[in-house]
Amino acid sequence: MDLEVVTVGTELLLGFTLDSNAAEVSQAMASIGAVVTRRATVGDDRAAIRAAVADGLNRTGFVIVTGGLGPTRDDVTKHAVADVFDAPLDLDASYLEKLERRFEQLRRGPMPESNRTQALVPRGGTMLRNPKGTAPGLWLESDRGTAVMLPGVPHEMRWLLEHEVVPRCRERDQTRQGSVTRSRTLRTTGIAESKLAVEIAALEERIAPVTLAYLPTLLGVDLRLTAWQLDSDAADDALERAVQLLRPVLGVNTYGEGAVDLAAVILDSLRRAGIRIAVAESCTGGLVGARITDVPGASDRFAGGVISYDNESKTRDLDVAESLLDEVGAVSEPVAQAMADGVCRRFRTEVGIAVTGIAGPEGGTEEKPVGTVCFGVRLPSGCRTLTRWFPGGRSEVRARAAQAALDAVRRALDGE
Amino acid sequence: MDLEVVTVGTELLLGFTLDSNAAEVSQAMASIGAVVTRRATVGDDRAAIRAAVADGLNRTGFVIVTGGLGPTRDDVTKHAVADVFDAPLDLDASYLEKLERRFEQLRRGPMPESNRTQALVPRGGTMLRNPKGTAPGLWLESDRGTAVMLPGVPHEMRWLLEHEVVPRCRERDQTRQGSVTRSRTLRTTGIAESKLAVEIAALEERIAPVTLAYLPTLLGVDLRLTAWQLDSDAADDALERAVQLLRPVLGVNTYGEGAVDLAAVILDSLRRAGIRIAVAESCTGGLVGARITDVPGASDRFAGGVISYDNESKTRDLDVAESLLDEVGAVSEPVAQAMADGVCRRFRTEVGIAVTGIAGPEGGTEEKPVGTVCFGVRLPSGCRTLTRWFPGGRSEVRARAAQAALDAVRRALDGE
Repeated sequence: MDLEVVTVGTELLLGFTLDSNAAEVSQAMASIGAVVTRRATVGDDRAAIRAAVADGLNRTGFVIVTGGLGPTRDDVTKHAVADVFDAPLDLDASYLEKLERRFEQLRRGPMPESNRTQALVPRGGTMLRNPKGTAPGLWLESDRGTAVMLPGVPHEMRWLLEHEVVPRCRERDQTRQGSVTRSRTLRTTGIAESKLAVEIAALEERIAPVTLAYLPTLLGVDLRLTAWQLDSDAADDALERAVQLLRPVLGVNTYGEGAVDLAAVILDSLRRAGIRIAVAESCTGGLVGARITDVPGASDRFAGGVISYDNESKTRDLDVAESLLDEVGAVSEPVAQAMADGVCRRFRTEVGIAVTGIAGPEGGTEEKPVGTVCFGVRLPSGCRTLTRWFPGGRSEVRARAAQAALDAVRRALDGE
Repeated sequence: MDLEVVTVGTELLLGFTLDSNAAEVSQAMASIGAVVTRRATVGDDRAAIRAAVADGLNRTGFVIVTGGLGPTRDDVTKHAVADVFDAPLDLDASYLEKLERRFEQLRRGPMPESNRTQALVPRGGTMLRNPKGTAPGLWLESDRGTAVMLPGVPHEMRWLLEHEVVPRCRERDQTRQGSVTRSRTLRTTGIAESKLAVEIAALEERIAPVTLAYLPTLLGVDLRLTAWQLDSDAADDALERAVQLLRPVLGVNTYGEGAVDLAAVILDSLRRAGIRIAVAESCTGGLVGARITDVPGASDRFAGGVISYDNESKTRDLDVAESLLDEVGAVSEPVAQAMADGVCRRFRTEVGIAVTGIAGPEGGTEEKPVGTVCFGVRLPSGCRTLTRWFPGGRSEVRARAAQAALDAVRRALDGE
């Protein structure tokens, strides 16, 4: 089943409110194998709502509208949809009575006149129960198509979606029951999107009917695999097959699946090896420690660290030789190595990660431009160093550097 | 000026990703008096993008499209828009060269073939500079209307919007300059939304026609003041009047306006006083240091710090007496005070901030439940300690604790 979603609200168009309802409707529909093919957002404007709903019905025959069912004058969704269906609005006397009782029970005084509109139903329509608020949902179906109206208040919308809309859609769509759209996400870091694409391009056809989407973020590129409109087992099988095909090609570039965090992956490796880590941070200023300690239970593997933001601290707290700093500069692989060694000695850990770099906007030179970051990883078997160059502003360089630091530890532990 | 926005991405239709770009485009346009009259979201599908862009051009003559400009096969926005304008795609040789150089500079090896598509420009179009990534924005204008294409990666989109699109729209739209919707935001922290509302309720009528919105976040409550569709000077005056009325009532609870960061406020205070700060972090694990060092130029006021995640480090690196730890426990005001003292001595700074607490999910007790956090602030004039209890899960407690640590420093420096 294909459908379109129309979200109504001038505040959405102004951008003050994120359209979380649209995302929730999409997810709920995908879970039962229905596909949202297009989404539109319009203001609290009867003509605009009418046009968007009519367009959606013309294209797919099924439209879900959220918002504009409240009691105020700018709530006109019901009127607009009734226009499309050429249906007059009838007053539902029993619902009106229920509304009035509700106001009494909540000791809110007599029901305001404006709430009467919430008891109006387009002729031929069905009210959908909304125990969370005063605006019922509405289901309107004719040879024009099917329009479902839901209130815009997120927790009311969510309740109606789950308890009223999804079951009805499922029932209505018996023939396709079992057909679902499911996704799995492989997370990569340390490799550019275009390079990744080159490496796995050949697989795109082989993983069909599963499709592949590249989702680049500051911290890496996520690969979302989606199986569309298959029966539940077939979707799972197709996804599993796709993951099995991709994993060996991605190799060490992928650090896990789904909501996994890179820091949690490292902590698990450390736990398996029975060793601990400490951090020595210059340009990231605590960000690497913050990433690690955001993982619940980090304390058994994370001893702590030194934020050696000035050179004095590098010498005093991490035993980096002053002569070395003078000779090669603070942003250099030898200093990163000395920092990693120093923090392991101080915290008596087997693993240490050190970061020193130029986050900008000041401090860059021709030889070491802004974005240059050196890393030192100390492991029981020795030290590795590397230098990377990150694009972007200060915050981006720092976020990328913290991720790269964690990734350097992961790759080093992986190679052990 | 009216316009429509088209966001492109199958991810968006699946509901896996919130459409933050749509909201940001709307806000940026509202800020210059342009009105987004409709928004559409379509998948990575050439025909669907073509239809949505054509519809938008027919209705308003101006469309901003985000997403689908990447190097992979599912990126088809440029082709779809070129279809609408009947414009062939030309290769921009100088941009191609620039792209190749960029790959070299970032030492990522030779540019993959797929990135070549990013150097394609619909004939008659103009590239918009994107220093944050490889996909340039595009501005295409003919008697068909105007289409602006922006990459979907949020931080790239944001940069282009601010530096390329808004200035061009402003210039183009001279005639309507004057009627604008403008906002200013006062930022508060350390006071609950409901308490804030009680204190400023009486002012809401006095600031009219400016309206007030409460925007609670993890880190405090922002107060958004909005002047709607006034001429530019009237909007500025009304907002200035509202700010002048609110400021004295908010007092020390507000730390600034707009995009100001709490850490930057502290660094300015330290700069004025000619003193430096160091951090001693247990439960925040580096987050306070990360917040401070995210501010450009922090190095002249931030010496560094110790992430004393285990008790050994508190004793060894911060001189917290073992007997004190045994007596009152690591999460206590006396230990927070000793940590602040210790880090000032080690880093030879005048100011120190220490955080020790229970971020959860484990480690809570009846006496000290999860969310209990103790702070110590060392100033030249003495030490202050406080204890706070934060709601939420581990990440929330830590984020709130880091903010409260910075706020404790701010309030202490303010009282000096």
